[in-house]
Amino acid sequence: MPQITRRMTLSINAIVWGENIHEQTNAVVREIYPDGMHNTIAAALNSDPGIDATTATLQEPEHGLSETRLAAADVLLWWGHKDHGAVDDAIVERVAKRVWEGMGLIVLHSGHFSKVFKRLMGTPCALKWREAGERERVWVVNPRHPIAEGLGENFVIENEEMYGEQFSVPEPLETVFISWFAGGEVFRSGLTWRRGAGNIFYFRPGHETYPTYHDATVHKVLRNAVKWAYNPQGTYKAIHDAPNVPVEKALEPIVERGPRLHRAGEAGYR
Amino acid sequence: MPQITRRMTLSINAIVWGENIHEQTNAVVREIYPDGMHNTIAAALNSDPGIDATTATLQEPEHGLSETRLAAADVLLWWGHKDHGAVDDAIVERVAKRVWEGMGLIVLHSGHFSKVFKRLMGTPCALKWREAGERERVWVVNPRHPIAEGLGENFVIENEEMYGEQFSVPEPLETVFISWFAGGEVFRSGLTWRRGAGNIFYFRPGHETYPTYHDATVHKVLRNAVKWAYNPQGTYKAIHDAPNVPVEKALEPIVERGPRLHRAGEAGYR
Amino acid sequence: MPQITRRMTLSINAIVWGENIHEQTNAVVREIYPDGMHNTIAAALNSDPGIDATTATLQEPEHGLSETRLAAADVLLWWGHKDHGAVDDAIVERVAKRVWEGMGLIVLHSGHFSKVFKRLMGTPCALKWREAGERERVWVVNPRHPIAEGLGENFVIENEEMYGEQFSVPEPLETVFISWFAGGEVFRSGLTWRRGAGNIFYFRPGHETYPTYHDATVHKVLRNAVKWAYNPQGTYKAIHDAPNVPVEKALEPIVERGPRLHRAGEAGYR
Amino acid sequence: MPQITRRMTLSINAIVWGENIHEQTNAVVREIYPDGMHNTIAAALNSDPGIDATTATLQEPEHGLSETRLAAADVLLWWGHKDHGAVDDAIVERVAKRVWEGMGLIVLHSGHFSKVFKRLMGTPCALKWREAGERERVWVVNPRHPIAEGLGENFVIENEEMYGEQFSVPEPLETVFISWFAGGEVFRSGLTWRRGAGNIFYFRPGHETYPTYHDATVHKVLRNAVKWAYNPQGTYKAIHDAPNVPVEKALEPIVERGPRLHRAGEAGYR
Repeated sequence: MPQITRRMTLSINAIVWGENIHEQTNAVVREIYPDGMHNTIAAALNSDPGIDATTATLQEPEHGLSETRLAAADVLLWWGHKDHGAVDDAIVERVAKRVWEGMGLIVLHSGHFSKVFKRLMGTPCALKWREAGERERVWVVNPRHPIAEGLGENFVIENEEMYGEQFSVPEPLETVFISWFAGGEVFRSGLTWRRGAGNIFYFRPGHETYPTYHDATVHKVLRNAVKWAYNPQGTYKAIHDAPNVPVEKALEPIVERGPRLHRAGEAGYR
Repeated sequence: MPQITRRMTLSINAIVWGENIHEQTNAVVREIYPDGMHNTIAAALNSDPGIDATTATLQEPEHGLSETRLAAADVLLWWGHKDHGAVDDAIVERVAKRVWEGMGLIVLHSGHFSKVFKRLMGTPCALKWREAGERERVWVVNPRHPIAEGLGENFVIENEEMYGEQFSVPEPLETVFISWFAGGEVFRSGLTWRRGAGNIFYFRPGHETYPTYHDATVHKVLRNAVKWAYNPQGTYKAIHDAPNVPVEKALEPIVERGPRLHRAGEAGYR
Repeated sequence: MPQITRRMTLSINAIVWGENIHEQTNAVVREIYPDGMHNTIAAALNSDPGIDATTATLQEPEHGLSETRLAAADVLLWWGHKDHGAVDDAIVERVAKRVWEGMGLIVLHSGHFSKVFKRLMGTPCALKWREAGERERVWVVNPRHPIAEGLGENFVIENEEMYGEQFSVPEPLETVFISWFAGGEVFRSGLTWRRGAGNIFYFRPGHETYPTYHDATVHKVLRNAVKWAYNPQGTYKAIHDAPNVPVEKALEPIVERGPRLHRAGEAGYR
Repeated sequence: MPQITRRMTLSINAIVWGENIHEQTNAVVREIYPDGMHNTIAAALNSDPGIDATTATLQEPEHGLSETRLAAADVLLWWGHKDHGAVDDAIVERVAKRVWEGMGLIVLHSGHFSKVFKRLMGTPCALKWREAGERERVWVVNPRHPIAEGLGENFVIENEEMYGEQFSVPEPLETVFISWFAGGEVFRSGLTWRRGAGNIFYFRPGHETYPTYHDATVHKVLRNAVKWAYNPQGTYKAIHDAPNVPVEKALEPIVERGPRLHRAGEAGYR
């Protein structure tokens, strides 16, 4: 049973990417997350011996996401808000490629407007919002989904920013959570997609002026999501190829007919 | 019954975008499509009085896709192959925005690698290929889908380029067609998605060295697809907004609690 | 433009099926719906000249759904609650077959537990509920979807029964509406599926002790849904077939190899 | 890391259900599968120490699927062909309930017409067929999907029965495999759905007059599918409930308004 063996001996290599601005510039946020949100989230993940989480931030060279480091990552978590535009387009493309190759991606809260998420969704990813510390009740609409493992029918976050529909993302593979807000809105708070070989999960809660990432149920969801997003089959490099299959290598014998544009062995147009 | 009335008095405004390179530079293609592929396709659409199709090409200013013209378009069809890179990124973004607002988009054959399609899918959109004029049999896997209206169980294109799986696109809303190729491959040749308010259809056949766009069944599919993609509800500008809903305008009475980042009336970060 | 012509000269033939029990036995319901809920709904549909709605009830022979009548129906709307078990299994099967052939089906409120809906979903179709006349706010999560045509961002039904998740139905094709309830629950109130050639829509509101089916916005949704569910391509009888394709009629020449179970011309096992 | 621990100490409990008729009555089938197809499949599963597969057959009391035995099953595989009608409706319902509770289900080949599969799909599940021992090439359209783990781009079964589209099942969650047939047809040979808490996979190959279940690649797919279908979270009994949430237990304080049908504590109608 090699798959299990591998899971036993190797942990899931997760990177928690944090924008790390408001923790430095806003007293409220710094007080709630003196170690930075990324470190708080990473610690929550590392409480599970099956996960080995490290962090990366906007301010590091290559935002902490070098080719080498991303190549070794199984799952990337992404939290950003204040300065999405500061993320280098080349790094965005690098992350997207790794997702297509099979790296899991978990996008958190205001990360809905990150370049990475918008790049992979191909839609505006917009929504309504209100910053009033109101009650959010997150309902599990897909019980026994791996990401909902161990949760009850719903859980409450007493103070959160409201996000309201329409959330302009592609129709998901599965809807896992839907949130109720005290002010009257609803939001699809847990959605899954697959892009290439990569599993993607969006999880709504996590406004930086509230202690959401200190909540034990939120921790549970994050750990579940890392395990769900993890694709144990390894990097799928062929996702980037558009190979020509020459006539003489066709699986069934065929005879070439009619004119053609390309000479034998020539690459296709991109 | 205003919807029907509108359909009677106004035709669907379709733009057929053609790259228009091989028709100018390749004798084989020019002979098959002396008027250009875009004009051939537009003529096939215009045989239906409910469709009013015009054309646009790469070589025109703004590739023929000015703000004004796109704003009036109901459906855009896209064929490109030789020089996807020559399409201006600003025009790509303009097209994507119109799709989100409700303009239908039909991507044809080698348009799978167009910037527009890759932008909206968020995936590589790659595939296998072979240029051997082999037989393609397109199977209808969703009979009575609007795009398959009037078709039999399958139809044959005697000479086509092969496209083979994996086609690295997001899991579709619906699979309408799957192709069988003489050389042993299969391909999901008709797929639908919705992005924002826009309906998107990918249709595989249409290599420029074969007379595919002179085929009556292909014409039928294209007309069906234009009608299916057409969203009669008009432009949905709100898709671009991420409005703040202030506490005093909440739908249910709530009291603001806790700290916040934004001052009243301030826009969110993007 | 034959499709439009047909729509002009022929209306969509809709049948509103009502259980018609509480209108007869419960004074509150009778007062709200003196003509029966089915007639109230049919009148709302008939305000659109493109729809020709009639009614059928549990008490009629064959529940008003004879083979002949169903064969001519384009769309069936289903409201039942008190006695789902009284619906004849043969009629349930007849309805399911017509849906597969292309008849649209709109299931209303407590119809979630109807035999017809459970038959077509293949799941329990269960949910939470509370009868407290509380406020329901229905959010449009798929703006410009045909079923949401003409609606704003949300609409309110001041007094409704609560339905809460989990709603145990298959993952839908599209989520159109999600409801917020004053008591803290959420519900996917507008969901679409396709089964065979038939379009299915579930619409949540409509508890019989409240005047929901007198609401103008609800009327609008019902009319939109009938138009969306309507498949203009006519009955698809082949959906019931499992045809043998004999070797000599194979599309590509093949030679029979190996042993077989069936003699030439023999039907398959069912 | 409790999930991994559980997986280590407990194997996945799989039941391979075989109709077991043609192995007894047809010399060709008996020669290929002298131990019965169910035992051949079970042996292929048991080559993985993480799976503990046993068998059940039509001829056993309760078809070998007692309440107790099903309650302990993690995954059920189903092969039937000659006499789908002989399966007791009560057992069909029992299986469906266990799937909704979280038992995985893998339906094989001619099981497309089994009562169990049709019950869970809610559609005819019909297809075209030809018994000519022709070549089937199964293409992986979702590389790195857990069910495709360890497979190449495609694999060949040299002699198989042809199944052709339209396969009248609901639009799947994911399309994993599509088959090419020598005679010109295509078929979606690997499809996934989720019903309640249960994962369902349909896998096409497996006609009883060919040695398909002796094929190593088919074995690999079956083992992968068992692991994919397995839901480690245990039985979800609440899937069968439609609980009333009384006003006094509402999550948010509400006041009952308007008339109601049900007295306090009364069960809902079913």
